[in-house]
Amino acid sequence: MGDPTGGPSTLLLVLDLSGIFVFAISGGLVAVRKQLDIFGVLVLAGTTGLGGGFLRDVLIDATPPAALADWRYLLVPVAAGLLTFVFHPMLGRLERVTTVFDAAGLGLFCVTGALKALDFGLGPVPAALMGMVTGIGGGIARDLLAGRVPVIFSSELYATPALLGATWAVVAAGLGAPEWAVTFPGVALCFGFRMLALLRNWRAPLPSGSASV
Amino acid sequence: MGDPTGGPSTLLLVLDLSGIFVFAISGGLVAVRKQLDIFGVLVLAGTTGLGGGFLRDVLIDATPPAALADWRYLLVPVAAGLLTFVFHPMLGRLERVTTVFDAAGLGLFCVTGALKALDFGLGPVPAALMGMVTGIGGGIARDLLAGRVPVIFSSELYATPALLGATWAVVAAGLGAPEWAVTFPGVALCFGFRMLALLRNWRAPLPSGSASV
Amino acid sequence: MGDPTGGPSTLLLVLDLSGIFVFAISGGLVAVRKQLDIFGVLVLAGTTGLGGGFLRDVLIDATPPAALADWRYLLVPVAAGLLTFVFHPMLGRLERVTTVFDAAGLGLFCVTGALKALDFGLGPVPAALMGMVTGIGGGIARDLLAGRVPVIFSSELYATPALLGATWAVVAAGLGAPEWAVTFPGVALCFGFRMLALLRNWRAPLPSGSASV
Repeated sequence: MGDPTGGPSTLLLVLDLSGIFVFAISGGLVAVRKQLDIFGVLVLAGTTGLGGGFLRDVLIDATPPAALADWRYLLVPVAAGLLTFVFHPMLGRLERVTTVFDAAGLGLFCVTGALKALDFGLGPVPAALMGMVTGIGGGIARDLLAGRVPVIFSSELYATPALLGATWAVVAAGLGAPEWAVTFPGVALCFGFRMLALLRNWRAPLPSGSASV
Repeated sequence: MGDPTGGPSTLLLVLDLSGIFVFAISGGLVAVRKQLDIFGVLVLAGTTGLGGGFLRDVLIDATPPAALADWRYLLVPVAAGLLTFVFHPMLGRLERVTTVFDAAGLGLFCVTGALKALDFGLGPVPAALMGMVTGIGGGIARDLLAGRVPVIFSSELYATPALLGATWAVVAAGLGAPEWAVTFPGVALCFGFRMLALLRNWRAPLPSGSASV
Repeated sequence: MGDPTGGPSTLLLVLDLSGIFVFAISGGLVAVRKQLDIFGVLVLAGTTGLGGGFLRDVLIDATPPAALADWRYLLVPVAAGLLTFVFHPMLGRLERVTTVFDAAGLGLFCVTGALKALDFGLGPVPAALMGMVTGIGGGIARDLLAGRVPVIFSSELYATPALLGATWAVVAAGLGAPEWAVTFPGVALCFGFRMLALLRNWRAPLPSGSASV
């Protein structure tokens, strides 16, 4: 799972950068829909792509965050923002495209976030929670800045898939599974659960009496 | 007042966990009123209960926050969220119940926050401010996520009681008072002042000309 | 540019405190317009004045932030908040006065933020970005708390001037320029660009098709 001194393994780095890329696109698409200018698109792309990881790094004391020490972490959201700015009509034509990118980012971040927290010495339960926080943090920051109700509260299942994927990663890592068995099933579990919840309109239990209020 | 290496004293730990519990209930009640599902209730309960302490720990460099290293800090908001989800009709029947829990959390956190800041070497004035920040941070995070105007701006006295309680704790600790004399009067001062301000509808001075705007 | 152990040079300290002062006034004026009471004015003044620097210090691991260890950093926003509370009718009479103070804070913070990031070992590109973050962070926090759409998204050029000023400071510092040549042109570039963008109503490029949406 990589070592704290030498940085993450190549696989984790690729997954992390992929998560930043797809989250940044989801942020850029929200900015385009809000008719923000190019800098608004870049700021929302960067916040969405890097926000969850920044929050995790600050909480587990992995500062300065990797994004500030490694140019690849800065280049990826800028590239994603510019691509969204130019090609958004193509992406926007597909109906649920923001949601798919968002679910992919959730799957990637919940796993890489949990593994990084383990690397920094957190126990299994806090590490799984940090994976969830990494996954949901960027989207919450995006929605707060864009003046939307955070997607996590839109009553479709959102935090649960992230917690599930992170839990897989923590358990598999604890059992000494090979890296691919730690990461890919975790990403797939979270992404698949989230997409199923969206497609079938699954809802978590509501407080009693909500319907009548 | 506890020592930085060995963790807080038992009394401070109990007060801190009590503050997390009552703040988490206030967050859960807001989520129930917003008709969020069970995960929304848990997320708002956790954010409200742990947000102020996370903010304090990050600012005074006490990372990773205690909540990530000690399972009791995670169990308490989860339990409070589940209790709120199940028993909210009972709590909701009492009119001002969110407000009372919120005031209790404010009183507990302003004292424990100030004492933790002292433990980490801050001077008395910044420590009192950190106590206030610990007290008001969770409620601000709760209201931002729930899309409400932060309660601190609702023009009833809110930050002042927290600053008062934190100041008591800092001064009493500086004078070498026994632990009970540092904590209980501080909590009582803040809680009592806040409840009085609510009951009597005390208002802080408004800028000149506000009424006519 | 100052040394990490001995604190910043006198020039940087004066510029930093000036930035806090003018940002705090801009925050206080927003609070006055929202008809908040005196504590709301002080909280918004403090958040706006210190928010960007806190965010920077947490990200570059310069915790506890200077503002918590140095009473001057706490006195300045309190004084600015009280001045705004008392004298706001005088300031409010001038039309664009919040905007001018905001632009001045942006110019001062983008330079001091970038130089502090360099001092803490960040590379030139992340340091310039940290300068931008320091400049825009306080205003974003102010607008989120006040329930306004962040000014950065109001489609006038905002982040770009900050990035420009920060880039000047990083490049000039890298070339070994004397301190005045690192700081003053950077502040002036950012402030001048921002004011020109406001006066001439310059707008950054919008996504294609925005007008018709």
